[in-house]
Amino acid sequence: MKVTVSRKAHFNAAHRLFRKDWTASQNNEIFGKCANPHYHGHNYELIVHVKGPIDPQTGYVIDMKVLKDLIKEEVEERMDHKNLNEEVAEFSNLIPTAENIAVVIYDLLKPHFNENQELSVTLYETPRNYVSYSG
Amino acid sequence: MKVTVSRKAHFNAAHRLFRKDWTASQNNEIFGKCANPHYHGHNYELIVHVKGPIDPQTGYVIDMKVLKDLIKEEVEERMDHKNLNEEVAEFSNLIPTAENIAVVIYDLLKPHFNENQELSVTLYETPRNYVSYSG
Amino acid sequence: MKVTVSRKAHFNAAHRLFRKDWTASQNNEIFGKCANPHYHGHNYELIVHVKGPIDPQTGYVIDMKVLKDLIKEEVEERMDHKNLNEEVAEFSNLIPTAENIAVVIYDLLKPHFNENQELSVTLYETPRNYVSYSG
Amino acid sequence: MKVTVSRKAHFNAAHRLFRKDWTASQNNEIFGKCANPHYHGHNYELIVHVKGPIDPQTGYVIDMKVLKDLIKEEVEERMDHKNLNEEVAEFSNLIPTAENIAVVIYDLLKPHFNENQELSVTLYETPRNYVSYSG
Amino acid sequence: MKVTVSRKAHFNAAHRLFRKDWTASQNNEIFGKCANPHYHGHNYELIVHVKGPIDPQTGYVIDMKVLKDLIKEEVEERMDHKNLNEEVAEFSNLIPTAENIAVVIYDLLKPHFNENQELSVTLYETPRNYVSYSG
Amino acid sequence: MKVTVSRKAHFNAAHRLFRKDWTASQNNEIFGKCANPHYHGHNYELIVHVKGPIDPQTGYVIDMKVLKDLIKEEVEERMDHKNLNEEVAEFSNLIPTAENIAVVIYDLLKPHFNENQELSVTLYETPRNYVSYSG
Repeated sequence: MKVTVSRKAHFNAAHRLFRKDWTASQNNEIFGKCANPHYHGHNYELIVHVKGPIDPQTGYVIDMKVLKDLIKEEVEERMDHKNLNEEVAEFSNLIPTAENIAVVIYDLLKPHFNENQELSVTLYETPRNYVSYSG
Repeated sequence: MKVTVSRKAHFNAAHRLFRKDWTASQNNEIFGKCANPHYHGHNYELIVHVKGPIDPQTGYVIDMKVLKDLIKEEVEERMDHKNLNEEVAEFSNLIPTAENIAVVIYDLLKPHFNENQELSVTLYETPRNYVSYSG
Repeated sequence: MKVTVSRKAHFNAAHRLFRKDWTASQNNEIFGKCANPHYHGHNYELIVHVKGPIDPQTGYVIDMKVLKDLIKEEVEERMDHKNLNEEVAEFSNLIPTAENIAVVIYDLLKPHFNENQELSVTLYETPRNYVSYSG
Repeated sequence: MKVTVSRKAHFNAAHRLFRKDWTASQNNEIFGKCANPHYHGHNYELIVHVKGPIDPQTGYVIDMKVLKDLIKEEVEERMDHKNLNEEVAEFSNLIPTAENIAVVIYDLLKPHFNENQELSVTLYETPRNYVSYSG
Repeated sequence: MKVTVSRKAHFNAAHRLFRKDWTASQNNEIFGKCANPHYHGHNYELIVHVKGPIDPQTGYVIDMKVLKDLIKEEVEERMDHKNLNEEVAEFSNLIPTAENIAVVIYDLLKPHFNENQELSVTLYETPRNYVSYSG
Repeated sequence: MKVTVSRKAHFNAAHRLFRKDWTASQNNEIFGKCANPHYHGHNYELIVHVKGPIDPQTGYVIDMKVLKDLIKEEVEERMDHKNLNEEVAEFSNLIPTAENIAVVIYDLLKPHFNENQELSVTLYETPRNYVSYSG
């Protein structure tokens, strides 16, 4: 009997989409205004989902306070008010598309859960575009 | 060919998280301010999902009016403007965490659906915390 | 390693729910005020989800601009500011319930994706009622 | 010492924007696809605001249950699941733009409030367009 | 040249609406299920608005971090996860309707602003009911 | 008889808050992580409000299509996917706080309205922080 608990968090960051091994015109063709060398940015809204059995002692799948603090430590402190391309090591050789950011966040959080807890993440880049990843 | 239909509902309730067999300090350690003996409360926002085949006569998986009335009868009348610990029988020996409330709601609704209809419930305890359960 | 990308869109349309082979009173009994011969309408909010591998060149599952344009071409231009019963060919013999509209949208979009891309659609008929379909 | 209380409600309706005394091409030029003779529709989300003194006996500006019932009686029963042009008398000679609908709703509700209570209404035609009117 | 800045916050609390000087049946007649002696509760969503001139040095009307901390200190620490009737001194002789809670919050915050800063508060008791107060 | 019409729009941008005439440590003290030299960013959600008389011919205060295009031309094309500090002339000597951005947007739009039309703008920097300006 497994229940999924979901916790929302958020961070604001700058980024740009481009490949160093492409010319400016190649980058423009594929990434359009997202390739702007001066960067643009987003309010990323993150939802972390953990599916697992309910602890019969506490009635919790996971203590939301613990989950909130984990997201703060692993995600917000690393990415909030940062330039993802310039300041977050995981993107030094990885384009910070929403898809890749979701995978990076999943990989940062995954070691904190046990084998009975299934992790997935949903990341809103804008209120109209979002991605989900579950490993 | 199955489609999932989802219907939103809501109820407002008081609750507290604590175990009668724990001391006040044990309860405080695990449940923090949620253990407050004077209770606190939430606007619970509920989404009930039913996945099933489309009835070729009506184009419905289930008549939303029927689903709305069922949620009203089984959930809202039982829990709305109530103290979950004191007034809802299902929680007389069960901690009313969001996880447990979702399981209780699922169990209340489940007998009303047939074997071709898959039920799941999503329960928002706050706009930032929610749980999902599908049996 | 598959990621799901989701894109929101919207269209406003009129519709009514009724069967030509039923009497008015039969239609009223089943569809209630949704059978109103003068029509009513909705702001349909659509979310299209595509699950697939990340293209290692671009970091995209699919370019959101491409997905946006595809939704515009296949769904918005066909259904926005239209009377679904009278003006959208797919509903000439199919009741435009939310369930059926979701299936029609899925079928319109499906041919544009390859076998590695899993399509699903979520359609909000109102902020309180929505349906999902994934083939 | 006046407080404003606000209550949300909603109704779904069909409408079209056109003038009987204009040609089809004049209507198309001004109203575009909103002039579609087959109608389109919206989920109208309504917020009714009442500013007044707090009743020292009850702590209420107005009982929300009374306000909810008033909106149901004067607005929802008149407009929900209706064709505004064809079935709502107020629009037999008035174009049902969001602006005009808001004024009509205000005029319907106004007689129910006393001189110490200031009424205003906000009407969302879509999640992206809304209007407000306060007399 | 004045700009209004608005900051959202939230707290969860239990309450009941009743007058000690009324009988149970009088309370039931006026307050209905809100009079439940076992309490019910809400997720209160609060928006604090401050209208004032822009500081030409910082470009701020008020530093949002300062406003956030002020709301936390004066409102959240007093009311979050509390029983408003039993544990918040301001309601020992005042019915905790949304209207009265808004006035109490306004009065708690008001002394922190200068004569050039106009304060107002908006308080959502549920997503469908809210109140506003500006002194 | 004046009605207010409101139209939502959005743009994504990078910015930083700092004064060139302050040291890094002064900037850090006042602007905190918002002073990050590598920038961060936001999804700005903009609402433009126009209060005016209803045109008796059309039932419009202003054609929403005209308002949408005006916002696109004056605001989105200037600011979307841009670095506000580096690429938007208005901020070459003005700190791009939400307050200042709102004033700049107001000033850009104002010349397009006549004396009977009252303009105001609301700008969400995040879903939790927003500002309003009406001249």
